[in-house]
Amino acid sequence: MFITCLDLEGVLIPEIWIAVAKRMKIPELEITTRDEPDYDKLMKKRIEILNMNNITLNDIQTIIKSMTPLLGAKEFLDWLQEYSEILILTDSYREFAKPMVKALGNYALFCHNLEINEEGKIVKYNLRLRNMKKITIQKLKELNFVLIAVGDSYNDIEMLKEADFGILFRPPENVKAEYPQFPSIFEYAELKENIKEILTS
Amino acid sequence: MFITCLDLEGVLIPEIWIAVAKRMKIPELEITTRDEPDYDKLMKKRIEILNMNNITLNDIQTIIKSMTPLLGAKEFLDWLQEYSEILILTDSYREFAKPMVKALGNYALFCHNLEINEEGKIVKYNLRLRNMKKITIQKLKELNFVLIAVGDSYNDIEMLKEADFGILFRPPENVKAEYPQFPSIFEYAELKENIKEILTS
Repeated sequence: MFITCLDLEGVLIPEIWIAVAKRMKIPELEITTRDEPDYDKLMKKRIEILNMNNITLNDIQTIIKSMTPLLGAKEFLDWLQEYSEILILTDSYREFAKPMVKALGNYALFCHNLEINEEGKIVKYNLRLRNMKKITIQKLKELNFVLIAVGDSYNDIEMLKEADFGILFRPPENVKAEYPQFPSIFEYAELKENIKEILTS
Repeated sequence: MFITCLDLEGVLIPEIWIAVAKRMKIPELEITTRDEPDYDKLMKKRIEILNMNNITLNDIQTIIKSMTPLLGAKEFLDWLQEYSEILILTDSYREFAKPMVKALGNYALFCHNLEINEEGKIVKYNLRLRNMKKITIQKLKELNFVLIAVGDSYNDIEMLKEADFGILFRPPENVKAEYPQFPSIFEYAELKENIKEILTS
């Protein structure tokens, strides 16, 4: 029996922070782990910027609710769920990711969460688990599932390595070049064909 | 962060084998673990009865598709998913359970599976894992989730014991009497209140 674990942003939906930055016209929010490799510093900076601009969780959720999944993502998952359980594994937060995951088809969502104060402002992020994606794959393998993992970036590589089958979907050029052991796929139709082969192998 | 693991038959939908037995008018299919405590013998007997009566997987799936969830089950899950991830843990088979789980709201389904021959007949059942419910709870706890488990019968007790919060839903009298350490709840409204308290404790 199969479980397919998919990263969310970049694989199934657009990048949330980029959408918020653009909509709110706050270019500083476009910083990513490429600009600030220390995730803790990055998140603290993001939260500081939000609060300086009086942006609440509600404001962000309004933006997220107006976002749409990547074209073809939902149809791809509709097909996949007939053959494999689906789990969305993201280092994003339940408060951000849940509405998008419901729009995609209400799959299970393993992520982190935010702390919100009485004014609706984000005060803190809670990581449920370090190396969450990798460790989730390990535990699911111990439940005798066969694991397929699909991700697009550096923070997905450990998950792809741990899974029985790892696939890069729409990776940046450098990630694609650095990890030639994983197929790099750019269209859902091709992803479907690739997974079909795995399911029947 | 919470995950609520729920048994399927008896908790969210009617018993599948009972429905098949009644619809097909084959009383021998109503045998349960109470009549035949050895699950392997029970399942082999069920499969034998199906094949003697020329009943295919397709016939059973037709019956299952005509079944409806227990009254109030879907609304209860609709409410719960806002606060907790939901996982359906059942010792039934993907081929039986998946259509019902989709009707309930497309939650993650951890179960076993069947082997089907070219004629569409069930030839074998595959247990993905022994003590699946209990071990699943263990692994999810290792992922730093807080676990709520809801079940109705003897085969749920280990799961309820392993979870942070175990709840019996509509248990038979003997199960209720034997395990007074778990609250025995009979209505979804009460189940909702009980879980609400856990979520805010």
